[in-house]
Amino acid sequence: MTIERRRSEWIVEALALRLNQHRDEPATLAQRLYTPLRGWIQQGELTAGEALPSSRRLARALGIGRNTVLTAMERLAAEGFVVARQGAGLSVADLGPLPVAPAPRAAMVEAPPLSGRGQRLLDFCATLSGGHRAFAPGVPALDLFPRERWQRLLRRHQQRSPTDWFDYRSQGGLPALKSALCDYLRLSRSVRCHPEQILITQGAQQGFELITRLLADAGDTAWIEEPGYGGAQACFAMAGLAMQPIPVDAAGIDPEQAAGPPPRLIYVTPSHQYPLGVTLSLNRRLALLKTAERHRAWLIEDDYDSEFRYTSAPLASLQGLAEGAPVIYVGTFSKVLYPGLRLGYLVLPEPLVEVFRRASARLHREGQYVVQAALAEFIEAGHFARHVARMKSAYRQRQAWLRQALAPAVAQGLELSSGHAGMHLVARLASLEQEQRLVDTGHAAEVALSPLSRYYLGPGRPGLVLGYAGSDEGEIARAGGWLSRAWLDLRSR
Amino acid sequence: MTIERRRSEWIVEALALRLNQHRDEPATLAQRLYTPLRGWIQQGELTAGEALPSSRRLARALGIGRNTVLTAMERLAAEGFVVARQGAGLSVADLGPLPVAPAPRAAMVEAPPLSGRGQRLLDFCATLSGGHRAFAPGVPALDLFPRERWQRLLRRHQQRSPTDWFDYRSQGGLPALKSALCDYLRLSRSVRCHPEQILITQGAQQGFELITRLLADAGDTAWIEEPGYGGAQACFAMAGLAMQPIPVDAAGIDPEQAAGPPPRLIYVTPSHQYPLGVTLSLNRRLALLKTAERHRAWLIEDDYDSEFRYTSAPLASLQGLAEGAPVIYVGTFSKVLYPGLRLGYLVLPEPLVEVFRRASARLHREGQYVVQAALAEFIEAGHFARHVARMKSAYRQRQAWLRQALAPAVAQGLELSSGHAGMHLVARLASLEQEQRLVDTGHAAEVALSPLSRYYLGPGRPGLVLGYAGSDEGEIARAGGWLSRAWLDLRSR
Repeated sequence: MTIERRRSEWIVEALALRLNQHRDEPATLAQRLYTPLRGWIQQGELTAGEALPSSRRLARALGIGRNTVLTAMERLAAEGFVVARQGAGLSVADLGPLPVAPAPRAAMVEAPPLSGRGQRLLDFCATLSGGHRAFAPGVPALDLFPRERWQRLLRRHQQRSPTDWFDYRSQGGLPALKSALCDYLRLSRSVRCHPEQILITQGAQQGFELITRLLADAGDTAWIEEPGYGGAQACFAMAGLAMQPIPVDAAGIDPEQAAGPPPRLIYVTPSHQYPLGVTLSLNRRLALLKTAERHRAWLIEDDYDSEFRYTSAPLASLQGLAEGAPVIYVGTFSKVLYPGLRLGYLVLPEPLVEVFRRASARLHREGQYVVQAALAEFIEAGHFARHVARMKSAYRQRQAWLRQALAPAVAQGLELSSGHAGMHLVARLASLEQEQRLVDTGHAAEVALSPLSRYYLGPGRPGLVLGYAGSDEGEIARAGGWLSRAWLDLRSR
Repeated sequence: MTIERRRSEWIVEALALRLNQHRDEPATLAQRLYTPLRGWIQQGELTAGEALPSSRRLARALGIGRNTVLTAMERLAAEGFVVARQGAGLSVADLGPLPVAPAPRAAMVEAPPLSGRGQRLLDFCATLSGGHRAFAPGVPALDLFPRERWQRLLRRHQQRSPTDWFDYRSQGGLPALKSALCDYLRLSRSVRCHPEQILITQGAQQGFELITRLLADAGDTAWIEEPGYGGAQACFAMAGLAMQPIPVDAAGIDPEQAAGPPPRLIYVTPSHQYPLGVTLSLNRRLALLKTAERHRAWLIEDDYDSEFRYTSAPLASLQGLAEGAPVIYVGTFSKVLYPGLRLGYLVLPEPLVEVFRRASARLHREGQYVVQAALAEFIEAGHFARHVARMKSAYRQRQAWLRQALAPAVAQGLELSSGHAGMHLVARLASLEQEQRLVDTGHAAEVALSPLSRYYLGPGRPGLVLGYAGSDEGEIARAGGWLSRAWLDLRSR
């Protein structure tokens, strides 16, 4: 009894001390009672069966309301840390052999390891761009985006939005956006579709995820372009697909060159091959369609930046070449508007529409209907087409600035890709060692030099992928000038 | 020569007709020339080697500018449909054996089928709620959301936002949001974390996707609650995991009851089991932690609606029970704010932080930084906590209305779950046949009755999952009254 009283006094004193120490915490008084008590029980300071001071006594001793004490005690009881005592009051519950001891950090690191596919995924994170620096590929001109107009649209649709836009949805996207997009794609990309075939996604990556997993099983083969896009490859890897890289020549990939097991998926960037920039020729397109039909495979057409073609009108889509072709068209607003928007879309063959809609709602959920409504108006009112046209001339100009900045190196033999289209140029280098050197020194100069060799699944060719769309004149001149000098330096050694 | 001339006249006339017919289309003139020409070439109306009329002649005959004709022809040439002719002008290219014929629709449906995992996924779409109707589970009170305040915050952060918020990011979310969330979770959920451990996702589903695939391989075992949450199960199924259902009793799942191969992942809803509503007891929590450590498995703590507890303070998280425990805490803003927001988060053990951040940037991309900034302020300024408190009392009231509406049935033996917490009640039914009848008739009465049996992976128990949080008093009275009568009807037969 004396021991119990003494323990009980210890609890009261310790609590008074804690309350005093943590006076400035934004927690409620009840939380500030609860937390230390729970800690002492978990650490074994208070042991099973031990009585706690009565709520009346605690309230008086600590100078706080009895209800506050009761709130803390009720929570401890609800969570099983204390139990009602024979007679009256509460005592510490029997938690069995003591809970998990703090694990040393090193043990945790090595403890439950990543999955095999998780490990493999890391290989595809190498070409990941993040944070703005000159030459990061795939970044549009954020400085030229019509922010005020866009914000006005967002505001208007925020105010107007019906309540059910905030709910769980499974429509495959806002009908108004699907319809606006459908008109745009039919006109500008010769895509054959009606609005129901469109599924709005939270970016192209989500589209790849759906396609890959709904249409292929682990062990199936995907044909990919070599070199090619790491984002799509990451999805294939995570889905357990075997990737068959097919070399890209001046006319794109040649299905005749493919060996090995028949493909289930064929991934292509026909308008503007990523990253090399070539256009898939019409004959190759037709051959690919035939190959896909023969193998009952699906063609994935990733049309990521086809809007920006400088020497002729944008090419028609592969999807639109033939009625009922097994092609899924993947689009994104990350390039034309901005990456942080997280909106993209699929154009699906009719038999897949319903199943993709359900799978998307289940696996990813839908949302951002306000943004979708603003985007629908942006397209319908013609702002989208005007923005594309403006960006096309801005990017042509930015490419010209880059060529100008690199002219001294080009005069000495630096080889650049044609640049008929898109948001980046490829510079060919003499060796992987040269590539590595430039990438390393670029890092220090705030220049994001993406090594071409990393875009290859097999042995890579040396080069640099130079995004120019996201940088203004000054940055292009600075970074381009630096690169030109760095290349000349390396060459003269 | 005469034939060529006659063909050439046919082309001019046919084009004139088409231009006239499609005068109102929003396409450019060049597009309206290009489209029929391409169509005729693809359909074989124009054959390989056939000469096209000169641009000069077409322009004159159609009464349009020569540049317009040239634009159309250049596009056809760029895409490989026409080629430069010996001498001058253009002729139709040789596309080889004719392109893909329009596939009959039926053939396509049956053509390249869904993957095995795609087929399996459809089983998990049954409990999907979409579109608002009374009793849809998991839908919060969208009518009580402080829209004006939220829109003010969005507007402010839209205006303030730095350009790089619109770019590709790989920070794992806006630091301000991670920090605000961390404070909130530490105080209200006893989560042990610092801000760097938080990864912002586009909803809880994206969190499940990352966990499942980064930490488990196909063929690995996941323990799940039986009955349980279809959204998480859909991820496990798509990732090829073997699911081991563990029955939920009054204290949650009992790891001692598990048989079969050791788990790699253990999925639990400890605060408020979904859908049955029980709380995982402290002893079971400790036992689960020990089991996870023994098997080097990861515990996934899905804390989807723990904020809404009516009889005591919210329970502390499983994650916070022990330092360094192998627990990943999954949170969502879909319940506390609204589903269409598409924001959720993971609290990761430190060794996983970096790898999850990279994987998330690669597989899903980051975005919506404006919304993240608005949310950070919403939390920091205390609006979040106040909204939770208001919703708690609103949901308690809504549950009371539901009980009142169901009172006639309850008086005759309809059994309801305790409702100490959460956003739904479970009604037990006598048979699966009764369940089916009620669900069918509910459909016609605009009442979304979710059959309890569908939440089971194995043979299901009959019942109904009745979401009440998303419906107002009138709707609850109407739908509840309907259900009460329908149940009494069925029972008296």
